[in-house]
Amino acid sequence: MNIKEETTKMKLAAPKLAASSKEQRDQALAMIAENLEQNADRIFAANAEDMEAAAQAQIAAAVQKRLKFDEHKLQDVLGGIKQLISLPDPLHRQLLHRQLDEELTLYRISCPIGVIGVIFEARPDALVQISTLCIKSGNCAVLKGGKETARTNRVLFTLIHQSVVEAGLPADCMLQAEQHNEIDELLSCHENVDLLIPRGSNQFVQYIMNHTKIPVMGHADGICHIFVDRDYDCDKALPVITDAKTQYTAACNAVETILVDRGIAAEFLPKLKEELESHQVKIRGTREVGELIPCEVIAEDDFANEYLDLILAVKLVDGAEEAVRHINHYGSHHTDSIITENAATAAYFMEMVDSAGVYQNCSTRFADGFRYGFGAEVGISTGKIHARGPVGLEGLVTYKYKMFGSGQIVGDYASGKKQFHFKDI
Amino acid sequence: MNIKEETTKMKLAAPKLAASSKEQRDQALAMIAENLEQNADRIFAANAEDMEAAAQAQIAAAVQKRLKFDEHKLQDVLGGIKQLISLPDPLHRQLLHRQLDEELTLYRISCPIGVIGVIFEARPDALVQISTLCIKSGNCAVLKGGKETARTNRVLFTLIHQSVVEAGLPADCMLQAEQHNEIDELLSCHENVDLLIPRGSNQFVQYIMNHTKIPVMGHADGICHIFVDRDYDCDKALPVITDAKTQYTAACNAVETILVDRGIAAEFLPKLKEELESHQVKIRGTREVGELIPCEVIAEDDFANEYLDLILAVKLVDGAEEAVRHINHYGSHHTDSIITENAATAAYFMEMVDSAGVYQNCSTRFADGFRYGFGAEVGISTGKIHARGPVGLEGLVTYKYKMFGSGQIVGDYASGKKQFHFKDI
Repeated sequence: MNIKEETTKMKLAAPKLAASSKEQRDQALAMIAENLEQNADRIFAANAEDMEAAAQAQIAAAVQKRLKFDEHKLQDVLGGIKQLISLPDPLHRQLLHRQLDEELTLYRISCPIGVIGVIFEARPDALVQISTLCIKSGNCAVLKGGKETARTNRVLFTLIHQSVVEAGLPADCMLQAEQHNEIDELLSCHENVDLLIPRGSNQFVQYIMNHTKIPVMGHADGICHIFVDRDYDCDKALPVITDAKTQYTAACNAVETILVDRGIAAEFLPKLKEELESHQVKIRGTREVGELIPCEVIAEDDFANEYLDLILAVKLVDGAEEAVRHINHYGSHHTDSIITENAATAAYFMEMVDSAGVYQNCSTRFADGFRYGFGAEVGISTGKIHARGPVGLEGLVTYKYKMFGSGQIVGDYASGKKQFHFKDI
Repeated sequence: MNIKEETTKMKLAAPKLAASSKEQRDQALAMIAENLEQNADRIFAANAEDMEAAAQAQIAAAVQKRLKFDEHKLQDVLGGIKQLISLPDPLHRQLLHRQLDEELTLYRISCPIGVIGVIFEARPDALVQISTLCIKSGNCAVLKGGKETARTNRVLFTLIHQSVVEAGLPADCMLQAEQHNEIDELLSCHENVDLLIPRGSNQFVQYIMNHTKIPVMGHADGICHIFVDRDYDCDKALPVITDAKTQYTAACNAVETILVDRGIAAEFLPKLKEELESHQVKIRGTREVGELIPCEVIAEDDFANEYLDLILAVKLVDGAEEAVRHINHYGSHHTDSIITENAATAAYFMEMVDSAGVYQNCSTRFADGFRYGFGAEVGISTGKIHARGPVGLEGLVTYKYKMFGSGQIVGDYASGKKQFHFKDI
């Protein structure tokens, strides 16, 4: 497959998809749900082959779990599609309606971004979520999933694409890329592709960001922090830290570093150690931490590491100000939490920490589109341009300005012959 | 000056500026206005030196005109600052307030992007506009203006910076770069700088886009089109085309190509030629155009040129569909207009043309923040990520998620022990 040629065709299909009605797009979604349900056996059979190949290749058990697409996962994605259908149309929304002068009227109207490339991990449910989000938001999509679920993805994509065409949407609005080398081809398609959303390892996302002129939305690493303030409640601190570290260790919103106020270190660290050890979490700390509890001593530079493992880095700080400085320097602007009963300290921390999510007294693992009530997400952005944090439908649209005149020229306003009379309607 | 060191200090100042109140930022703006007015003579004297150097260097008359900063320009920028003060705070706005569960509340709050680098043309009024927009929106800014107004800019920047410090905002929140080689240094500061806004020639903006990892907002070229539909009103077509070409030929929103429906070409082209010749505009057209009116014949590829001169490219098309295809292929997604009395044709054109601005029966020159009633603009974006079209205050902010809990952990929701109860407040 020639990705450049295919995305050129996609670019031509994009305005047609953008012009489609909510009814057409929702009908496509309904047909996808129906087709997936009716062809469940075909999907499960393909998935069984993927699972068998993964078992033979001795892929890690945690990864194998994610590959699985069973009745439970099918019901999950069907529920997601139904929720998506129930959401209002993100397109054709009038965001501004302003009379500039008589018979000269400006509108700002929401519209799709255009052509989006999404590269995602080996999870069949991700393929369904991402493609249905793109359809609802009127975006053409190039989808490249992890190779470990190639068979399942092929069946799912075929069913989804067929439904889209049956619903009358342009056939060229979706494309599945299956070969790894097609990723590099996709990166060079800046004339046709408007946005890339890569999901995966730090190294992989960095590679994408460094090898394309296409804007990239997402996050490379997730170095999340929890700061235990001197005004902390230990009964909140310990479960929140344990949850943030162990509930899903490989997630980008898992905590990597605990900052502890120096004033409470002597009383808190032994309790933290006991709690973490009971969950098989190893502590690495600065020399100062090592003097209070036995732990592997690490250097300052180690705080830039994302462990994604049952390891937690610990450092002492002098209050919220130093905690903020550490987080803004070593963090990845993803999600950071403070444990404190002091509202003023929390307000300071949440204002000054420059991250997509800033929390008081809860686990960093809450950073997620579903948990925020957005429905599905296409990814989490640590960038500050366009969308930040968990990105759902809203992050997949932009707007255009439409202006209706009756022969107006700028010369008349520049010369003073005419004046603007701005009036929002 | 070491830009990396300076922007590192700026990054530390950014959260402080982000936390500042509307009153503080508006007071800084008021003090800027006062300081500029009280030091008008100093500014005018520096500008006279710039103007003299420009005259000696025999810089083009059109450019010299833009360098000038006189009483009239001063009053313009003072008016702009007053308008900016009157605008509501773009920061600390609550964009979402949602209870996820009891005592677990999510807010989306608007905040500045952080540190912005703006590289702009030799126009002293641009320095004032850009810096005051950054102050109002709480963004730290590295400002690099054109070298032809270096003396004026130095006085203006000193006065602006002094006012900002007097108002109690962090001294490190603004920086003026004066050396051309500092631009390359700035491009490598992706760890400290969140956004670049380059203004200038196509070649210059392309250079910036290709040599930095920092997100770039702006436009490289402005290849704008006017399509004259078969249902056109000639009394609208001719003045709109003349205005779009001649009112400010060097502007990015000046028209470069006229597409004419084949059905009206024989009657319309002679009138167009007569009108344009009376304004010294030369026509270049396809072979087919050359058979109807005398003109220099050009090839298809020439439609990718941005002339920024009294030259207009003309091509015949079969209706709106072919016009849309041409514009989406050769255009720069800036601003394109249709001349038609047919509402359905206009609607089709405006839906299908993939540009920041799509107009009916008015000049492309209207694409401008002031003319849209946005107040000043930092630039016009042809990208589809973050902001599109003329970018004012709104394009300089992002948001962060703040969540207030009381010890909640994700494990309880994953296990089903607790359920989310989303409730927007």
